[in-house]
Amino acid sequence: MSSEFGKILKVSVFGQSHGTAIGVNIDGLPAGEKIDLEELQRFLDRRRPGKNALSTARSEADKPIFLSGLMEDTTCGAPLCAIIENSDPHSKDYGELASKPRPGHADYTAWVKWKGYADMRGGGHFSGRLTAPLCIAGGIAKQILARRGIYVGAHLQVVGGLADQSFPPAPTLELFREVAEKPFPVLNDQAGEQMQALILSAKEGLTSVGGSVECVATGVPAGLGDPMFDGVENRLAAALFGIPAVKGVEFGIGFAASAVMASDSNDPFAVRDGSVFTETNHAGGILGGITTGMPIVLKVAVKPTPSIAREQQTVNLSKMENAKLTIHGRHDPCIAHRAVPVVEAVTAAVLLDLLLEGNHGTF
Amino acid sequence: MSSEFGKILKVSVFGQSHGTAIGVNIDGLPAGEKIDLEELQRFLDRRRPGKNALSTARSEADKPIFLSGLMEDTTCGAPLCAIIENSDPHSKDYGELASKPRPGHADYTAWVKWKGYADMRGGGHFSGRLTAPLCIAGGIAKQILARRGIYVGAHLQVVGGLADQSFPPAPTLELFREVAEKPFPVLNDQAGEQMQALILSAKEGLTSVGGSVECVATGVPAGLGDPMFDGVENRLAAALFGIPAVKGVEFGIGFAASAVMASDSNDPFAVRDGSVFTETNHAGGILGGITTGMPIVLKVAVKPTPSIAREQQTVNLSKMENAKLTIHGRHDPCIAHRAVPVVEAVTAAVLLDLLLEGNHGTF
Amino acid sequence: MSSEFGKILKVSVFGQSHGTAIGVNIDGLPAGEKIDLEELQRFLDRRRPGKNALSTARSEADKPIFLSGLMEDTTCGAPLCAIIENSDPHSKDYGELASKPRPGHADYTAWVKWKGYADMRGGGHFSGRLTAPLCIAGGIAKQILARRGIYVGAHLQVVGGLADQSFPPAPTLELFREVAEKPFPVLNDQAGEQMQALILSAKEGLTSVGGSVECVATGVPAGLGDPMFDGVENRLAAALFGIPAVKGVEFGIGFAASAVMASDSNDPFAVRDGSVFTETNHAGGILGGITTGMPIVLKVAVKPTPSIAREQQTVNLSKMENAKLTIHGRHDPCIAHRAVPVVEAVTAAVLLDLLLEGNHGTF
Amino acid sequence: MSSEFGKILKVSVFGQSHGTAIGVNIDGLPAGEKIDLEELQRFLDRRRPGKNALSTARSEADKPIFLSGLMEDTTCGAPLCAIIENSDPHSKDYGELASKPRPGHADYTAWVKWKGYADMRGGGHFSGRLTAPLCIAGGIAKQILARRGIYVGAHLQVVGGLADQSFPPAPTLELFREVAEKPFPVLNDQAGEQMQALILSAKEGLTSVGGSVECVATGVPAGLGDPMFDGVENRLAAALFGIPAVKGVEFGIGFAASAVMASDSNDPFAVRDGSVFTETNHAGGILGGITTGMPIVLKVAVKPTPSIAREQQTVNLSKMENAKLTIHGRHDPCIAHRAVPVVEAVTAAVLLDLLLEGNHGTF
Repeated sequence: MSSEFGKILKVSVFGQSHGTAIGVNIDGLPAGEKIDLEELQRFLDRRRPGKNALSTARSEADKPIFLSGLMEDTTCGAPLCAIIENSDPHSKDYGELASKPRPGHADYTAWVKWKGYADMRGGGHFSGRLTAPLCIAGGIAKQILARRGIYVGAHLQVVGGLADQSFPPAPTLELFREVAEKPFPVLNDQAGEQMQALILSAKEGLTSVGGSVECVATGVPAGLGDPMFDGVENRLAAALFGIPAVKGVEFGIGFAASAVMASDSNDPFAVRDGSVFTETNHAGGILGGITTGMPIVLKVAVKPTPSIAREQQTVNLSKMENAKLTIHGRHDPCIAHRAVPVVEAVTAAVLLDLLLEGNHGTF
Repeated sequence: MSSEFGKILKVSVFGQSHGTAIGVNIDGLPAGEKIDLEELQRFLDRRRPGKNALSTARSEADKPIFLSGLMEDTTCGAPLCAIIENSDPHSKDYGELASKPRPGHADYTAWVKWKGYADMRGGGHFSGRLTAPLCIAGGIAKQILARRGIYVGAHLQVVGGLADQSFPPAPTLELFREVAEKPFPVLNDQAGEQMQALILSAKEGLTSVGGSVECVATGVPAGLGDPMFDGVENRLAAALFGIPAVKGVEFGIGFAASAVMASDSNDPFAVRDGSVFTETNHAGGILGGITTGMPIVLKVAVKPTPSIAREQQTVNLSKMENAKLTIHGRHDPCIAHRAVPVVEAVTAAVLLDLLLEGNHGTF
Repeated sequence: MSSEFGKILKVSVFGQSHGTAIGVNIDGLPAGEKIDLEELQRFLDRRRPGKNALSTARSEADKPIFLSGLMEDTTCGAPLCAIIENSDPHSKDYGELASKPRPGHADYTAWVKWKGYADMRGGGHFSGRLTAPLCIAGGIAKQILARRGIYVGAHLQVVGGLADQSFPPAPTLELFREVAEKPFPVLNDQAGEQMQALILSAKEGLTSVGGSVECVATGVPAGLGDPMFDGVENRLAAALFGIPAVKGVEFGIGFAASAVMASDSNDPFAVRDGSVFTETNHAGGILGGITTGMPIVLKVAVKPTPSIAREQQTVNLSKMENAKLTIHGRHDPCIAHRAVPVVEAVTAAVLLDLLLEGNHGTF
Repeated sequence: MSSEFGKILKVSVFGQSHGTAIGVNIDGLPAGEKIDLEELQRFLDRRRPGKNALSTARSEADKPIFLSGLMEDTTCGAPLCAIIENSDPHSKDYGELASKPRPGHADYTAWVKWKGYADMRGGGHFSGRLTAPLCIAGGIAKQILARRGIYVGAHLQVVGGLADQSFPPAPTLELFREVAEKPFPVLNDQAGEQMQALILSAKEGLTSVGGSVECVATGVPAGLGDPMFDGVENRLAAALFGIPAVKGVEFGIGFAASAVMASDSNDPFAVRDGSVFTETNHAGGILGGITTGMPIVLKVAVKPTPSIAREQQTVNLSKMENAKLTIHGRHDPCIAHRAVPVVEAVTAAVLLDLLLEGNHGTF
């Protein structure tokens, strides 16, 4: 299943940017979970475009319609299907693109795979718009996890080389909330202002800028995940690379590992109040693919939005010759900040899947 | 299945560091593929320990015994199971570890998961030794891919912050072979000598050092992989994070994406000899999860070997109190260089799986 | 994923009998396949209730609304999601059932699984109504298969012990069409009249009657399916048991095998026009889990509709005491005849999945 | 994975009839489970050939060698791999078969799939001999289930149309043991003697005879399994059709459903000692794919051994012409009685998988 992830909790996304509707089918949600639909909407609004000059002008209400899986506002065990109708597609902006693949987009690979039958309007099924249904799944997962003391938060770590500070070792729910409520999701607002200035300058320069997102989950019990290929890192990475524009995923110390000695990488164990913890968390809460009980810490690299207003070199696929392309329409000068809730969403959904599966290491 | 990856070609690894044997079961290999067993052995020898001061002194012949799946030396379609007998375990070196988890190892999470029943001798099923059967699978996959013009090569990119040069945009089979035959797998031997000096100095300092590996696959046809969660990046990452000590995976521009503008991230399309290519390859050969036909380029971060000879702080799990631990026995002062063929192996196995699945985007 | 089947082509069903909508998400359809929506509707109408006294009076138009995956009427490679709105639920008919599980239904097991949060109105997600979206998937699969010369047909084999004749060894498309167009899908209309009389007499007797369905697929190439647990029988059975009320699945000679000698079970091979066939087809087109190239022949047992108007003994789950139950509302005195297109649908979807996967036994 | 089944507990079988060894890799076994190796051997001996005139004269000790997954005799959480060396292959008996497929065997489909590279000696990977490693997995599963009060037993239900009596509604462990210890596993020994006479007469007539097996599991908690396609019936059927020669699987009333009214098919609910049960068990312990808490009852049809000593018609695949074939060597005049422990084994492994997954319907 190409547009699906999960083992016990399966999240399956459908829709194209300019189709009738986009949506998600979530199979395996536990029954009896009340969904706070207003809180879910606030979560979706964090990702929603059209709010300011930092993102695309495409305006979508992103109101989910629930087709199944809920009784009143409570899960009933049956698959939960929710859709979002596409209200503001502007398909004519994309006419020329049917034969001229946009550099950095999936237009060309979609054409190779589906031989010209692909829906190339607005990126079709590859559009960043498909992250809206992902956020429905993740927003629901976040609520269910929170009820068990597991909190997932994220912030914009880097934009165009400008870095925010990192989360503290044990971020509180309050800190997660504080960042989530900011219009620009950083810990250090001064850094955030510099980042925003850079994004606006990229916009003026008819280009776009990349970034990265840090995500942390606290309260995750030790013992989740399985060795080797079914570990927490494997499952999170497999899902996170499904977010459009993600080019790297790392846990804990990540790529910094290649520059350090064991003393900066091993986490000493210690006992406090009868339970084991580590004094540092370079492992990002995962050893041997299995959770340690420490916060899960991951980072995700997001490439600059490929759609830019500058003229670019491409090919005309119907004539098989070189061509020039100028993309019109509405585009994000940066998508890393809008990816923040999406990374949270995917992380939360995978963690709920792991929690539902539980630790069956012994009976 | 925790110790398995793949969809059409399934690679399943079993065994513990100090058990009777370790091995791999490969289900879904095409029939009629002759395996050059000497070439396979040479590939396994690249990973094999005990060759010099840069790796553990544990000496293992790593000769595979084929139990099934071959007629003479040719695949017959049935699952191929191959085992390696453990000849030099030295289990007594690990006695104390049963109750004192080694920082940075999976000892503690194994204990949480399997409640003291885990085989903790030498890391048990989490041992780096399990990468030997992975190399059997990958070595076979490399031979089958090579017959179709697909070549996979890797080199040590960084050790302790010291960097080798990168692969050129289109590395040749000769270059791959040249690096593979070196005792220390780098492109620039001067950089390699500095790295080796650093590793030996880490060894003298009773510590270890991390690194990263760059891996490239050439000749991969466009159109493999599927959108969103069943893409080439998702499947490669899910498998690569199964290699012990890997903490990060990136494709193409990877985390550098967070510091650049679209002009350094988009790859212009062009036509040459009637086919489409990109003039740069920041995408690492993958757009929208689907191969572009350009080389696949990925990097993997490998943490410093957690087993070091210095005294470390840990806990005594039977007494639930803080404790000191000094690990004796034989250990690698760096595992990044030994990870080079393992990254090749896993990449090759995943690519063969994708190739067998083929592009069923249209009939 | 509980409500999903398939490997390359994934069919995922959602919705509850009395919810907002029911639907299907089909991931992995090849692009470029034109769907004849009128033909699809005719197929759906074969399953649709409310047409005569032989089935429930619940009247549903069963008109699919396509949310994604189509450009005009042609598949575009993205997941195809189609829904059917529930127009005639009559939920009040089911009030008492919330605490009194209907014998033979999944009410009790749903209650055990979802602890009273289950949507028990009309059987919820377990309702036979969920076979409508299955028929959307299967109807599309049938069109795609037919374009490749693969035809799937079915008829009612038995009702209440009264048997129709069996399909001839190599049924033609014309025969499949002829049966499909009949209001009561049997080969022998005289047998069909007796069956209908029995169904009506069961209705008058406030009970219901069971039956079985025979399904045949012609034109299936040899070599599909894999050994042991990923064979054609395994995959078809796993999907067919997902049809509500199915209690048995057999291939070729099936359970009759237990009464015969090898001479009535082995199929002699022979050569005709340079290709191999078997002179009989007791194997039902499958040997060792792999297709032989002969027609696939299977039978499915369908139990009597559990909802009957007679008073039955059950329990009151809130009081944990014995209770009497009389089910009001609209029910089918037999569902085996309505299962005929559903068995076709599921068989077609699984065969398309196998065909898309193809034979990768050798490169 | 073609030769694998299971979701949490994965059972993967490898080997060919005349290869070096056959074996099983079991991933996901809970740790801390002591395996009584003598009891396991007794279970394997029930399937072992060469004991009397009713089965093939091929003599195999079928002693498993454990390569991984055990510490002493207790599971350690790592994948358990066990092999059986092939000691008595007699490959020369099979020479002619390389080009002449045996009717009723997978020789022809293996040839189509693997283009002549298949190991056709003794049926290769399709051989009934592969059920020995299945019995290792199932024998271990049976011990783990028994410790939780879940017992699995089976008997030969029918041979050549001659029927044994059925299991009583709630068979005891003692009854299961009694049947298991009989050299010919039937409930009614008089019926058993008639069956044996029929098998011996088939042998004398140079043919073979089919049969069926009834299997029951008691003590299974209510609430296991998931709706539609991940139900208990789906998962059991998918695995049971992996046993060579199985052509039908039914649960509870099974195909008899097609001859009855709802009164003979619905099971009235009742309360006893504060818990719910059904007074009859036509559902075979499963409603809506989910266990009811009543015994699971299933039947499996086993075709006559395809290898018979009579001359049969086949084709010469290298010359593509009709040919005659007389199979020499050692063959079973019936395999249904030897399938009895195999059906138990597969049923037990699937039930342990379901039990490990547990009921995550609510948190």
